[in-house]
Amino acid sequence: MEATVQGLLNGGDVLFLMLGAVMVFAMHAGFAFLEVGTVTQKSQVNAFTKILTDWSVSTVCYFLVGYPLAYGTHFFHNANSLMGGNQGYELVRFFFLLCFAACIPAIISGGIAERARFWPQVLAGAIFVGLTYPIFESLIWGQHSGLLQDLFKKYCGAPFHDFAGSVVVHSMGGWLALPAVIALGARRGRYRNGKSQAIPVSNIPFLALGSWILAVGWFGFNVMSSQQLSGISGLVAVNSLMAMVGGVLFALIAGRNDPGFVHNGALAGLIAICAGSDLVHPLAAFLMGGIGALIFVYGFHWEQEKLRIDDVLGVWPLHGLIGTWGGIAAGIFGLPLFGGMGGVSFSAQLTGSLLAVVYALITGTVVYGLIRLTIGFRLSEDDEFKGPDLAIHNIHAYPEEQVK
Amino acid sequence: MEATVQGLLNGGDVLFLMLGAVMVFAMHAGFAFLEVGTVTQKSQVNAFTKILTDWSVSTVCYFLVGYPLAYGTHFFHNANSLMGGNQGYELVRFFFLLCFAACIPAIISGGIAERARFWPQVLAGAIFVGLTYPIFESLIWGQHSGLLQDLFKKYCGAPFHDFAGSVVVHSMGGWLALPAVIALGARRGRYRNGKSQAIPVSNIPFLALGSWILAVGWFGFNVMSSQQLSGISGLVAVNSLMAMVGGVLFALIAGRNDPGFVHNGALAGLIAICAGSDLVHPLAAFLMGGIGALIFVYGFHWEQEKLRIDDVLGVWPLHGLIGTWGGIAAGIFGLPLFGGMGGVSFSAQLTGSLLAVVYALITGTVVYGLIRLTIGFRLSEDDEFKGPDLAIHNIHAYPEEQVK
Amino acid sequence: MEATVQGLLNGGDVLFLMLGAVMVFAMHAGFAFLEVGTVTQKSQVNAFTKILTDWSVSTVCYFLVGYPLAYGTHFFHNANSLMGGNQGYELVRFFFLLCFAACIPAIISGGIAERARFWPQVLAGAIFVGLTYPIFESLIWGQHSGLLQDLFKKYCGAPFHDFAGSVVVHSMGGWLALPAVIALGARRGRYRNGKSQAIPVSNIPFLALGSWILAVGWFGFNVMSSQQLSGISGLVAVNSLMAMVGGVLFALIAGRNDPGFVHNGALAGLIAICAGSDLVHPLAAFLMGGIGALIFVYGFHWEQEKLRIDDVLGVWPLHGLIGTWGGIAAGIFGLPLFGGMGGVSFSAQLTGSLLAVVYALITGTVVYGLIRLTIGFRLSEDDEFKGPDLAIHNIHAYPEEQVK
Repeated sequence: MEATVQGLLNGGDVLFLMLGAVMVFAMHAGFAFLEVGTVTQKSQVNAFTKILTDWSVSTVCYFLVGYPLAYGTHFFHNANSLMGGNQGYELVRFFFLLCFAACIPAIISGGIAERARFWPQVLAGAIFVGLTYPIFESLIWGQHSGLLQDLFKKYCGAPFHDFAGSVVVHSMGGWLALPAVIALGARRGRYRNGKSQAIPVSNIPFLALGSWILAVGWFGFNVMSSQQLSGISGLVAVNSLMAMVGGVLFALIAGRNDPGFVHNGALAGLIAICAGSDLVHPLAAFLMGGIGALIFVYGFHWEQEKLRIDDVLGVWPLHGLIGTWGGIAAGIFGLPLFGGMGGVSFSAQLTGSLLAVVYALITGTVVYGLIRLTIGFRLSEDDEFKGPDLAIHNIHAYPEEQVK
Repeated sequence: MEATVQGLLNGGDVLFLMLGAVMVFAMHAGFAFLEVGTVTQKSQVNAFTKILTDWSVSTVCYFLVGYPLAYGTHFFHNANSLMGGNQGYELVRFFFLLCFAACIPAIISGGIAERARFWPQVLAGAIFVGLTYPIFESLIWGQHSGLLQDLFKKYCGAPFHDFAGSVVVHSMGGWLALPAVIALGARRGRYRNGKSQAIPVSNIPFLALGSWILAVGWFGFNVMSSQQLSGISGLVAVNSLMAMVGGVLFALIAGRNDPGFVHNGALAGLIAICAGSDLVHPLAAFLMGGIGALIFVYGFHWEQEKLRIDDVLGVWPLHGLIGTWGGIAAGIFGLPLFGGMGGVSFSAQLTGSLLAVVYALITGTVVYGLIRLTIGFRLSEDDEFKGPDLAIHNIHAYPEEQVK
Repeated sequence: MEATVQGLLNGGDVLFLMLGAVMVFAMHAGFAFLEVGTVTQKSQVNAFTKILTDWSVSTVCYFLVGYPLAYGTHFFHNANSLMGGNQGYELVRFFFLLCFAACIPAIISGGIAERARFWPQVLAGAIFVGLTYPIFESLIWGQHSGLLQDLFKKYCGAPFHDFAGSVVVHSMGGWLALPAVIALGARRGRYRNGKSQAIPVSNIPFLALGSWILAVGWFGFNVMSSQQLSGISGLVAVNSLMAMVGGVLFALIAGRNDPGFVHNGALAGLIAICAGSDLVHPLAAFLMGGIGALIFVYGFHWEQEKLRIDDVLGVWPLHGLIGTWGGIAAGIFGLPLFGGMGGVSFSAQLTGSLLAVVYALITGTVVYGLIRLTIGFRLSEDDEFKGPDLAIHNIHAYPEEQVK
């Protein structure tokens, strides 16, 4: 009887985390379609291939190096011992956390679209997923979390809280993308004779499909972040929902019914809620998501028109700025004063969130600086004119039409 | 030990219902693509934005008013007490039932496509999801079910049975759409000089994608309607499958291999089976779904060509007529005579199904009548000519092509 | 208490297998989009309708004949007794295994695309799913597995191991497709005046969507093949992941960054791992998947250019050759020598895998030979020129554009 119950616990945990992993794996199709819909037609094949290649390289790097670095364990045993006494729970935990790590290159991909060379961006992703991301992860969630979190507890009264990665994943990805996009420069024709000239997106249905896939999978991202069935929380699910909905509605108003803003608004809300989704009241989640959407709508405009940074999908305001907002907001709306669960500290949230920004900016600048100086990061003028689909993959997204 | 088992029960229920909610949430992407594929290209952006906005407004209305109205509980406690002793089960139950409520505007959306103004249709959806739907829901499934169901038990011998919402959800949505479509009038050019002129659909692949997403998510709609893991039923899953398959095959024959009928046939079958999916034999389910498809194929033709109602996606025959059929059919094929589980009454099913029709027609006529009289429901002639994408959202579905 | 735990076990198993079934059902949308993206525009509607019709006919045949044949049970009881004492577990088991059986016509569909008549291919699928597939299934997994597996145990030292159907499903489908494609002949214009002239694919985004849907659903295909929650294995999940990733990366290199090869490479890896996914080490899985991708890239070229077989999606190398490779490879990398679980025999794997090839070639040749001789298999020259969409379904995939 006790063995049966233990079996149910083990099986339940493996199923729970496996479902979460599959849902977040599916989100990578969402990243792909979001990019495909937003770029021009001559960069669609490239978007698909980048996302799938980055995913695959991330898997190898995180399996061999990243996960061992973050959690102090490895998989160089035979199959039998990998299964352990718990039906291979450690393996699905790797799978689930890989899905998070692999978001880093998938986020950056949207910023550097249409003019980056293929292998240099793969290389950068490999370095982040294999090395720099797991080091930060180890300090917040992993084997070295004692080091940093004890300092937070001592000086701020509570550890830095990032339930599902507003900071560790999204802010990290978004702030790494900033130096990447700057190192690369704007697409030809984006800013001409001192004037900003928006390059029209190719396909709203694919953009919307990407957003939907991401939003659906996000419930795995957030809910399964408890990593054990016994820790499942209906609050996390409904907070994710409310933040998404807040994001949609605020983006609808601020973005004047523009479909790009509305569909990215859902994502803005979801990014804002990750960190505090287990802490805050659903109405607070609605507001946090709504503010996230405002950050996106105005941040995107500011970035593109004032700062003149050609971040194609706006991944820096979306994942970077809102990720940081999510980390900080958990320290506000998580307080009992606002109906939250408590146990968080505003100063810890602020410090931890800024730490991620600094870490990402430094590592991103070093990696992309070196790549630019050595192997080069940007397509040749000719190749950019042809578009990456023809230049790199030797095929159009719609070959039959091209032939006609 | 007992605490562990109780924990498994709680965790299992939250996971079960959360998965159901996510699957039905995903169905809303299906509603979007089904509409996008069926309308003309100049209404695709509008379809996406309507569905996502309606979803978001529904969430807010149902959270604040609708769910409390239907189930006599509310969420104005702090986060801690929302989690209760059962890991926030009430919250995921809200999420799951929201997914049902939000089907109402999503169903109507397909009928009124291409010529309705944006905010008036949002307003109508808000009234239904926040008010009229939860009142009916409270009588069948909710806090006031005692009132109505006791009458059914007394006079018909059994309560009105609607396991997964053939009547409460689909028939309600479809019969609400009828006054909406009539209040709106046909698209310009749909009936010219007394002749019916079909407006060609834009995109069969998107239509098929929508149908597939809906069909896959439907297994969450039906199976998770037990709302507790202990009530899961393999019969519900296989009946849903068999009804869908019956719908496809009957539509294939009756619709002469037309892809629109075949892909809507799957949905026809699934709508027909919701009410009785926990009661009937799989072969009866096949037949119920098949008859559903016949109702759609011939009902669609009758509506469009004889009644001259420009219900773009045919949502009245699909959700309205078939929903009613599903409610009634549960009272036939649910009987032990046909291999069913029994415990249902034909007269209760007939009465309950007709009650929903009357309720929907009255509330729909009042709401859309008022909207038409006050703020207006229909796009101006100019805007309809430009199409809602340009008129409302100021963008095409394929902006890059438009620029060329 | 014991009843509660038993209830959890039953409910858990039904949920587990139901989720698996839904995930593999969703894969059929993936088959559809993979084909839609790879064929020309005039065959897209046909691809969608074929897949959905084949699915539906398969359901009926497998419910009435196939499953009873394979597992010695049937569903001709009333609903009450179908639920049994275990919440209808047998029904969801039927659903799950149907999803496997229905892969047979879905696989073949991609090979015979663009020039096969509609009903003859439906008929062939019905025969396979209702009759020849279940007979083979009964020998490996089903009621007669004692007969064959005892011989394997006696002469090879271990039974033939095919955990998730590299051989029973994929190799069977792929090797059945070979006689079908040969019986049908190449599309007009594919080989002209002795020269091979590739027909350009229509839509890379749909091809990629199909591949993503298949890859995501595949985790249900493999993980839920344990058929009971107590048998869930994190190793199966991660081996599937690693094989997929190996497939992507090897295809990327061998296929020179071609998006078709990269996205089919993921599938190649997943097909290679099915049989041994519960046995091998993740690094072995990576290699098995990678070799699978090489088999696809070079096998596809060899088939199309040397053998001059117009297998449109390359389903014979993909499912046939790689399925066979997966069966054999489980007998190599499953050995403890390579870090595997052991309990397999190379000779059993080789023999079993070849047996499936012979069985598929014979049954396929007989069925397609008879169809060709009697009712005919190929569209008329006129109809092929018009394309199956217009010829069979009387509609284009993009009707609005066609009208313009």
